[in-house]
Amino acid sequence: NVFPEVIFCQGKTEEQILAIAQRILEGGGSLIATRISETGYKAIKQAYPEAVYHEKARIVSVSRAQTPKMRGPVAVVSAGTSDIPVAEEAAVTAELLGNRVVRIYDVGVAGLHRLVSRRDDLVSSTVIIVVAGMEGALASVVGGLVDRPVIAVPTSVGYGASFGGVAALLTMLNSCASGVTVVNIDNGFGAGYAASIMNRAE
Amino acid sequence: NVFPEVIFCQGKTEEQILAIAQRILEGGGSLIATRISETGYKAIKQAYPEAVYHEKARIVSVSRAQTPKMRGPVAVVSAGTSDIPVAEEAAVTAELLGNRVVRIYDVGVAGLHRLVSRRDDLVSSTVIIVVAGMEGALASVVGGLVDRPVIAVPTSVGYGASFGGVAALLTMLNSCASGVTVVNIDNGFGAGYAASIMNRAE
Amino acid sequence: NVFPEVIFCQGKTEEQILAIAQRILEGGGSLIATRISETGYKAIKQAYPEAVYHEKARIVSVSRAQTPKMRGPVAVVSAGTSDIPVAEEAAVTAELLGNRVVRIYDVGVAGLHRLVSRRDDLVSSTVIIVVAGMEGALASVVGGLVDRPVIAVPTSVGYGASFGGVAALLTMLNSCASGVTVVNIDNGFGAGYAASIMNRAE
Amino acid sequence: NVFPEVIFCQGKTEEQILAIAQRILEGGGSLIATRISETGYKAIKQAYPEAVYHEKARIVSVSRAQTPKMRGPVAVVSAGTSDIPVAEEAAVTAELLGNRVVRIYDVGVAGLHRLVSRRDDLVSSTVIIVVAGMEGALASVVGGLVDRPVIAVPTSVGYGASFGGVAALLTMLNSCASGVTVVNIDNGFGAGYAASIMNRAE
Amino acid sequence: NVFPEVIFCQGKTEEQILAIAQRILEGGGSLIATRISETGYKAIKQAYPEAVYHEKARIVSVSRAQTPKMRGPVAVVSAGTSDIPVAEEAAVTAELLGNRVVRIYDVGVAGLHRLVSRRDDLVSSTVIIVVAGMEGALASVVGGLVDRPVIAVPTSVGYGASFGGVAALLTMLNSCASGVTVVNIDNGFGAGYAASIMNRAE
Amino acid sequence: NVFPEVIFCQGKTEEQILAIAQRILEGGGSLIATRISETGYKAIKQAYPEAVYHEKARIVSVSRAQTPKMRGPVAVVSAGTSDIPVAEEAAVTAELLGNRVVRIYDVGVAGLHRLVSRRDDLVSSTVIIVVAGMEGALASVVGGLVDRPVIAVPTSVGYGASFGGVAALLTMLNSCASGVTVVNIDNGFGAGYAASIMNRAE
Amino acid sequence: NVFPEVIFCQGKTEEQILAIAQRILEGGGSLIATRISETGYKAIKQAYPEAVYHEKARIVSVSRAQTPKMRGPVAVVSAGTSDIPVAEEAAVTAELLGNRVVRIYDVGVAGLHRLVSRRDDLVSSTVIIVVAGMEGALASVVGGLVDRPVIAVPTSVGYGASFGGVAALLTMLNSCASGVTVVNIDNGFGAGYAASIMNRAE
Amino acid sequence: NVFPEVIFCQGKTEEQILAIAQRILEGGGSLIATRISETGYKAIKQAYPEAVYHEKARIVSVSRAQTPKMRGPVAVVSAGTSDIPVAEEAAVTAELLGNRVVRIYDVGVAGLHRLVSRRDDLVSSTVIIVVAGMEGALASVVGGLVDRPVIAVPTSVGYGASFGGVAALLTMLNSCASGVTVVNIDNGFGAGYAASIMNRAE
Repeated sequence: NVFPEVIFCQGKTEEQILAIAQRILEGGGSLIATRISETGYKAIKQAYPEAVYHEKARIVSVSRAQTPKMRGPVAVVSAGTSDIPVAEEAAVTAELLGNRVVRIYDVGVAGLHRLVSRRDDLVSSTVIIVVAGMEGALASVVGGLVDRPVIAVPTSVGYGASFGGVAALLTMLNSCASGVTVVNIDNGFGAGYAASIMNRAE
Repeated sequence: NVFPEVIFCQGKTEEQILAIAQRILEGGGSLIATRISETGYKAIKQAYPEAVYHEKARIVSVSRAQTPKMRGPVAVVSAGTSDIPVAEEAAVTAELLGNRVVRIYDVGVAGLHRLVSRRDDLVSSTVIIVVAGMEGALASVVGGLVDRPVIAVPTSVGYGASFGGVAALLTMLNSCASGVTVVNIDNGFGAGYAASIMNRAE
Repeated sequence: NVFPEVIFCQGKTEEQILAIAQRILEGGGSLIATRISETGYKAIKQAYPEAVYHEKARIVSVSRAQTPKMRGPVAVVSAGTSDIPVAEEAAVTAELLGNRVVRIYDVGVAGLHRLVSRRDDLVSSTVIIVVAGMEGALASVVGGLVDRPVIAVPTSVGYGASFGGVAALLTMLNSCASGVTVVNIDNGFGAGYAASIMNRAE
Repeated sequence: NVFPEVIFCQGKTEEQILAIAQRILEGGGSLIATRISETGYKAIKQAYPEAVYHEKARIVSVSRAQTPKMRGPVAVVSAGTSDIPVAEEAAVTAELLGNRVVRIYDVGVAGLHRLVSRRDDLVSSTVIIVVAGMEGALASVVGGLVDRPVIAVPTSVGYGASFGGVAALLTMLNSCASGVTVVNIDNGFGAGYAASIMNRAE
Repeated sequence: NVFPEVIFCQGKTEEQILAIAQRILEGGGSLIATRISETGYKAIKQAYPEAVYHEKARIVSVSRAQTPKMRGPVAVVSAGTSDIPVAEEAAVTAELLGNRVVRIYDVGVAGLHRLVSRRDDLVSSTVIIVVAGMEGALASVVGGLVDRPVIAVPTSVGYGASFGGVAALLTMLNSCASGVTVVNIDNGFGAGYAASIMNRAE
Repeated sequence: NVFPEVIFCQGKTEEQILAIAQRILEGGGSLIATRISETGYKAIKQAYPEAVYHEKARIVSVSRAQTPKMRGPVAVVSAGTSDIPVAEEAAVTAELLGNRVVRIYDVGVAGLHRLVSRRDDLVSSTVIIVVAGMEGALASVVGGLVDRPVIAVPTSVGYGASFGGVAALLTMLNSCASGVTVVNIDNGFGAGYAASIMNRAE
Repeated sequence: NVFPEVIFCQGKTEEQILAIAQRILEGGGSLIATRISETGYKAIKQAYPEAVYHEKARIVSVSRAQTPKMRGPVAVVSAGTSDIPVAEEAAVTAELLGNRVVRIYDVGVAGLHRLVSRRDDLVSSTVIIVVAGMEGALASVVGGLVDRPVIAVPTSVGYGASFGGVAALLTMLNSCASGVTVVNIDNGFGAGYAASIMNRAE
Repeated sequence: NVFPEVIFCQGKTEEQILAIAQRILEGGGSLIATRISETGYKAIKQAYPEAVYHEKARIVSVSRAQTPKMRGPVAVVSAGTSDIPVAEEAAVTAELLGNRVVRIYDVGVAGLHRLVSRRDDLVSSTVIIVVAGMEGALASVVGGLVDRPVIAVPTSVGYGASFGGVAALLTMLNSCASGVTVVNIDNGFGAGYAASIMNRAE
């Protein structure tokens, strides 16, 4: 496997996280731990002082191996302030796997001009990740603007009939723009990882 | 009531439709019969030769009373070819209730330039109806472009995870553009009627 | 845009709220911050002493710009005691956007006489907002009583098969009274805003 | 069991229906066959010429045993023209089980005056059955008008977000009027039967 | 109205509860307050020392008016230990409204003999309330044993695919035993009230 | 694999079915083709005249290999007349895989005495299959009567809130009787196969 | 009943648990208490010092009676670290009921080699329990590898579109491997119990 | 846009299809018409004799423009015979957009050896499309075998709790293998198009 192994920390005890981290790092690999709490970070930090905490992305990383060569930058686009944790999870994952990442945040469908003004950044990316909650429409709009693979990440942000991200998920699955594929609700890591696999220069 | 009475024909027999039509027209009112089949039309036509068949909209009308004065035109915006029957139901309803209607069809979120090029028509309308199936996102985009009441009509067009219009319905209910309200799936009539009530000049 | 910009505070940190508030107010606009907590209010108050806290509505406002002229009063109708926070969010929003608001609270479908006794207030309004949880039926009844645009707001009040507002939402979408449109569950702000757009005197 | 046995014919072959009918009638009981097709009726008629076809209710009956004494009339209330088959299933069932039935059809929530004008008929009934599709609200309104057991029957009439009767079912389960209980979607027979058990004079 | 007014306390502040209680009691009626917390009870107790706390049922009552005459006892049947709070809400409600109540608890479908051994108590009741969570089947079994009106109350007890009471609700709505009607999930009060209306001796 | 290969014919063309059948039979195995139409049967019959048509079970079989030894009889229990096709699919599958099958049909929860009178047949079986639609409760009752593995098969029989078998499925998954496991809606074959694997004498 | 009685402790008070435990143990039986908290354990321990706490499985047991003879070992297979509590509930239940249990943990579908390397352990078991959350696919893979009864237990582990275990539940119900049956989400006890009934040597 | 325009024919009349086809082809582009019926094909064939009918894929194409250069072959993997129409829609789309396609059909999770034996074909592809109905698990297994972008297409094949493809959709969204993204149910075209965008050599 060309990419570092990953620990999904949610629902795991600190002991379990540390045990898996140890196995990975002693095997010579790099470590990415996602959905980690601050106390989880501190536990890893104590054992591995070179561990880095990406707070907004809720990720801890220990980089030891080299990352593969990539074909171009990855753009991460998001709509609302509350979507940023998931967007950062995607962006930091992509960076740790070797991509250069262009962040295009706070561009909503209800204010299209802000998005359109960043069109050049979108066109010059090889893969685009779109993170959006209630505003699931953003993936269609981005997919209509440029001819690039778009990975859509619905977020659980919202209330009422957003049903914890289901509304955004359905919007994205029904996207009328071709080239859009979708990952699980809030799965920023999955989007960052899939973007990296797509972006590898063989 | 300032507006003509309406017969929702789906699920009614021809006899039932004719009986209600007779009661309405003998009372001096105008008639609007929605979701009517061709044979239903013929039955009304035989009894009331002045009946008009709006085929695409699946509506039959007999206009006898005057319609109230309206404040401005109503725009009906739709995305896909398959959404046209519902869009026409909304447009013809609005026309029969006394509005001038501007049709802006075939403008999808994946091709924003077509929509943006019609911005003047949107701005000069007093109410806007947006009809969209898989592309539920269109309501947000229109709502973001202009400061007008937007009535969103999800359609049951689509397949798979569109769930007979539920995906579009949820997108519209979660619209991030303020000023958007929603009616039932495929309810073109309801949108045309609500637009007319909003558009009345008291 | 003729109306003040709005901050939806739920899910945002105080720092994020303050930063957006500063940008809006330095731009010369008025501020409406919805779903705000008491500590959020205090943070704004410290920076902008003229900030007003509408506690029941969970709204903080700073009014600096003039509001547009409206065509008539807006009625806000609600059924149960527990629906009042959402009703107040709608009412205060409508007031801050320049409308005179008539509150008709505590009128349930199971006690129709209370509602019918307020018929004059309904008739003299240009737009009516109906806020109801388990009593989703209220929108149909109001829509049947008067020829006015009715904006229905389902609330998440209830238990069991109310499914967090879904039962009321479906009732309202299926309303047999013409002229009823619907916004998201608990979206009092959206209803107040849509009512204001409908009510503007051009 | 004080009431005749019943055959639910939907999904059964004519042979199966006839075999069950024969067993019941040879046992000396009366027969009620619901959801029966016209050919099903003819098959029973041939074997039992005294069989009666209640066409609107889709019921065939052969009355041989005496029915128990009842405490008062049963009212069957319904809103729309399309709800009549289910309303008739309830009404005919109640009649066959020995009740006097008062039909109050075509009284919708959007036209309350028609319902209110029949208040006396409601008050003088011992049990009330309310049959309603999109207008699920009718059960609450009736329950609020009179102090009688109300059996609510949601119907699958409607389209879009009525979801085959689910919207009406949820409205009825959430009824704010006390004394309302609910049966399955389209289950007119069940309502008529439950009303009869409630109405028996012991 | 022959029965006392009721306050559903969940989601109401103590001030709101006290204000409604005062209005009711000063009007000369009896009071039933359901879903009340212990502090809610203490607040009422301070103002009205004759208030009685039915702890398991989460009900506070002040009895001042006479209850109507009833036709026979009401049986309350429940399956599991965790269903008892809802069963008690039903039982205490029925008692406060004037019924004699027979409690038949801890009789599950997986142990039919315990239920069958109580058959006499069921037969001698005029109305039967069945409260069941995962074991929604109990309503069908009771309905098959005796010819009495059965009011089924699904409870939110359970986990996994019980979906907060939806599984039990659906089982009960699909009951193959005639005479079964259903109320909302956990709505013990509604069942007790409906039973009382059915049980009144006119 | 000790059991014959199986063709699930629904959604396959006759050509596809024949091609798979040929591959299986030329390999020396026995053939079981489920969900087969009459024309599908005739196509197989023409090619393999020894093919047997189990009409009620919608199965065609060609038996060439020996079946493994079983530990005891398998009981197939079902409630309603309309559940028989699925029950027969289970029963015939079990027979073709080498089991002796005891059919206990037409025993519903609302008529427990019929089920209880067959208790000996249940006790003497090594595995029990319970097939039930609206009466999903039957699995719990059977599981409570005897200490045997119970495989529950929900059927799509029913209407309204049975939701195509979902109500029965949920009832069975929530069964309070230990020892009950569940297969997919209408999956009579799967139940028959699982029973056979459980029943094998090693 | 050949197996000890079981207390499902979730939702029960300590007093209720102790009372049931006392009744069981005084009757001479063994005790299994599932979903028990640590304080619940301590309460039992004080009364019955021989009580054993199986912490990971959240089970307390008091073994007094002999267990029946079994035909072979039971394998418990699970995929992720977070699935272990449910897997342990199944494994400990099976052990307490008299089975020898082989634990095969941490074998996911995305790393098939780990599972395949344990094929011998699977083949030599008489019943296999598969516990999996997001990895619902594991049941199909195991069912495809060996000819044994597979009891699939979906877990509520996961996030987003795992919907609290519904995704895994549906995957398992649709398993294309014959011989797979399913129990409720997180129902490790039910799986252990069903495995024991299947595994009994008569 | 580097790729030909596409007509989604489902729900469009022949006249509408022909009109769009004419506009595209007269603009000099190539044509891909998906979900087309045989009569739709004949209508295009008459106007454009060079039209090619890909029957299994339900696609008609007219190739006039050159396709972009691709980086490697695309693998299309599917499990069941009934999934082939969707798999072919994906494969033919990818071919028409310029990819070399390797078909790996009939490899189910319950028979892993068939899939593993094709591992070389998977490794040598740049993008992999996995089409699966009930067997939604296939995407995880393929994603675990090789480090390539996997586009998962759930199909509506199945019955009962497959819910028209929802079960497979959820399985795929919850895939534990990194690098998997998902498109709408039955959306073979979308998968083929997304694969082409990912596969382009810039």
